[in-house]
Amino acid sequence: MIMEKGISSIEVIPSKSSQVTAVKVLVKEPETKQTQRGKRVGFVLVHAGAGYHSESKAKEYKHVCKRACQKAIEKLQAGALATDAVTAALIELEDSPFTNAGMGSNLNLLGEIECDASIMDGKSLNFGAVGALSGIKNPVSVANRLLCEGQKGKLSAGRIPPCFLVGEGAYRWAVDHGIPACPPGFSLAAFKRNKRKLELAEKVETDLIQLKKRRQSYEKGSRVKCSARGRLPKTKDGSCCFCLCVLQENDSGTLDTVGAVVVDQEGNVAAAVSSGGLALKHPGRVGQAALYGCGCWAENTGARNPYSTAVSTSGCGEHLVRTILARECSCALQTEDAHQALLETMQNKFIGSPFLANEDGVLGGVIVLRSCRCAAESDSSQEKPTLLVEFLWSHTTESMCVGYMSAQDGKAKTHISRLPPGAVAGQSVAIEGGVCRLESPESRTADSSLHCRECE
Amino acid sequence: MIMEKGISSIEVIPSKSSQVTAVKVLVKEPETKQTQRGKRVGFVLVHAGAGYHSESKAKEYKHVCKRACQKAIEKLQAGALATDAVTAALIELEDSPFTNAGMGSNLNLLGEIECDASIMDGKSLNFGAVGALSGIKNPVSVANRLLCEGQKGKLSAGRIPPCFLVGEGAYRWAVDHGIPACPPGFSLAAFKRNKRKLELAEKVETDLIQLKKRRQSYEKGSRVKCSARGRLPKTKDGSCCFCLCVLQENDSGTLDTVGAVVVDQEGNVAAAVSSGGLALKHPGRVGQAALYGCGCWAENTGARNPYSTAVSTSGCGEHLVRTILARECSCALQTEDAHQALLETMQNKFIGSPFLANEDGVLGGVIVLRSCRCAAESDSSQEKPTLLVEFLWSHTTESMCVGYMSAQDGKAKTHISRLPPGAVAGQSVAIEGGVCRLESPESRTADSSLHCRECE
Repeated sequence: MIMEKGISSIEVIPSKSSQVTAVKVLVKEPETKQTQRGKRVGFVLVHAGAGYHSESKAKEYKHVCKRACQKAIEKLQAGALATDAVTAALIELEDSPFTNAGMGSNLNLLGEIECDASIMDGKSLNFGAVGALSGIKNPVSVANRLLCEGQKGKLSAGRIPPCFLVGEGAYRWAVDHGIPACPPGFSLAAFKRNKRKLELAEKVETDLIQLKKRRQSYEKGSRVKCSARGRLPKTKDGSCCFCLCVLQENDSGTLDTVGAVVVDQEGNVAAAVSSGGLALKHPGRVGQAALYGCGCWAENTGARNPYSTAVSTSGCGEHLVRTILARECSCALQTEDAHQALLETMQNKFIGSPFLANEDGVLGGVIVLRSCRCAAESDSSQEKPTLLVEFLWSHTTESMCVGYMSAQDGKAKTHISRLPPGAVAGQSVAIEGGVCRLESPESRTADSSLHCRECE
Repeated sequence: MIMEKGISSIEVIPSKSSQVTAVKVLVKEPETKQTQRGKRVGFVLVHAGAGYHSESKAKEYKHVCKRACQKAIEKLQAGALATDAVTAALIELEDSPFTNAGMGSNLNLLGEIECDASIMDGKSLNFGAVGALSGIKNPVSVANRLLCEGQKGKLSAGRIPPCFLVGEGAYRWAVDHGIPACPPGFSLAAFKRNKRKLELAEKVETDLIQLKKRRQSYEKGSRVKCSARGRLPKTKDGSCCFCLCVLQENDSGTLDTVGAVVVDQEGNVAAAVSSGGLALKHPGRVGQAALYGCGCWAENTGARNPYSTAVSTSGCGEHLVRTILARECSCALQTEDAHQALLETMQNKFIGSPFLANEDGVLGGVIVLRSCRCAAESDSSQEKPTLLVEFLWSHTTESMCVGYMSAQDGKAKTHISRLPPGAVAGQSVAIEGGVCRLESPESRTADSSLHCRECE
């Protein structure tokens, strides 16, 4: 296996729009390792949310990403399917109190946890999802089980098995299928903290005179970046100019959706996503993490697709839904230059989307992976079948925490990607990534004729 | 207004695949009427489900479509928005005991009604949806209210308003917004009827020997088309060869999703869809009617779209979700030939979709509308701004019931479209439609330069 790693250069790409700044980080290192033939291969890329990651908790975010990568790789090394590996990564992310998923989820207006999660299998193209699910420790397990049950064919009386269940019905289905419940009342302290902030915000909101003063102050140019998420400009006293957002300020524990993308030794891809949703959301609100095409996407190479692709999204659910961003990214990645394709998608189909024309900031992030089989020369001067994996992450939020690992690595690499100084969250795009060549233990198969830019 | 109406010819188009038969019905009539200038114009196309419509109840299906059209046109004539007109049509469809939506919905395994509904506004591109909603008389009213509330901007503390609510949370939100609830226990008789059939089917299913005999019988060629929905071949005794589907046999009152598409006098489009879901579905199951891009789509003409388009789908929810069919149709309709574009979409992106490769039949239907402004010569030999409306319906199910009407018509036209003799439901496509020219009371606006095939 040849692993290209390490950040060697940062390049600022001027955008067509003066509102958009794109950052390209090339991940390259000439280091070459001799791989052990016959070992199982695979690759995982995870994220612990696109949002705002405080420096003070950077260690915790990175640590959970690292553990999630290790769990997925352990599964891959044991010969598990890509869907099982991606589920293992998600379970680790959901179990962390530092992520907004599973047990650590944001609470809704009633003080309850309601989770969304989904998974997609690139081989079968099957999908499983849950929305507004309470009382289950790992929502992704239910999504994965729905996917698996869906593959078994029709139910009695020719009924089509469900791929998307919500609320109480989803809970009953999960319990009936032996999936563990979780103790109620978790994270009540976080709810009380947020609830207090909401009450404060509502009080402030009624004071229109004060709001006008703030806007005047902003218009006069005394701009300070929002300390909550960098989303909106703030006046010098730290209050928001436009929306009075005080939620999550100094509360970086409540981040957005988590997710993972995996390619297994056979080149099959899978993607998954899990979220506790927006803090203090209305009960029953379902976001992108549960929705087909919006939260995750995985599609193996095929007659129409030169590449296998897997995508997982994070950020403001409504923005990701209305742009069907996961599927858009997957489609775009079928063109030659993955980096350029993803950058253009984030600029034109997300920030510049006509479906979000009225939004004052478009907040989201994606992790993507694409792979294809190709031939690569090895030390023994013989051609070996190689799985070329390109992986990228991109976000318009202030930061995004990611981790990645191949089955041959001893440990995962983690990174908190941040917008460059001066870039405005919701209006700028950061993009980084790398390339990993995995030497397959298998012989080359029929797809060896597929287009591969790296090998031409 | 010039209205082209009436069916003048039926043409069978040979498909590339021997499994697919396409039927093209040209709707044309040279009759020309002098329109009254200054009157409000608009057009509505509705459907009462793609599925199986028995001849014995044809009158009822057509009648509800007719009333739905009239309700929408009354709204348009009163100057209502396209979204309000489409909602009025859906309320009428939901209130009928003959449709599978609202009060007449199929029941789930617990004997409860759980509805999905969504609406999209082509002007603002906003979307509202509810899933697995119980206890509300008109689910589409909740979807429309979510859309309206979403347009008002952020909630307190900068929270983003929800566009998709499910279950109990959706019910609470609806009641808080003054939307009428409905009496519980409606349609219990239908549940008991279906429940009995399910028990029968489960009993039969355990009898594997009998199943094998059926398959052998099928393989020997004694094929009789399924009397339930024409979906699967059946043996001569009427039992299904493959899935033992006995649900809904002789029970044509429980059809699929209903929907409508509208263009108002200003050329704005809207689409909506509402469904009670599959009979005896698992509680919490959400189908395409609630899902963005799957149940409905509406998009006004813009920089990238020469046409305004509106789409509403019906059929097997899981099939419509996995193909994101509403959005696919809308994208396809931006090409020149609407009929050909829709036919190819139904053949290649629905029946032939790689996402449904393992399905033994792909069941669904769509109604679509596209419009553009153009100039047309009138009797007074002066150029008048005209709204050209092309409307089509297409289905792979045995039948689909539609109705359509313009604001200048005295009454709606209704039609039950059926697959031609010999065509197999789930593997063949029927497609029909027409063209309507609406003379606008307004002066031509900036979009008059838009491409219009009819005027070139």
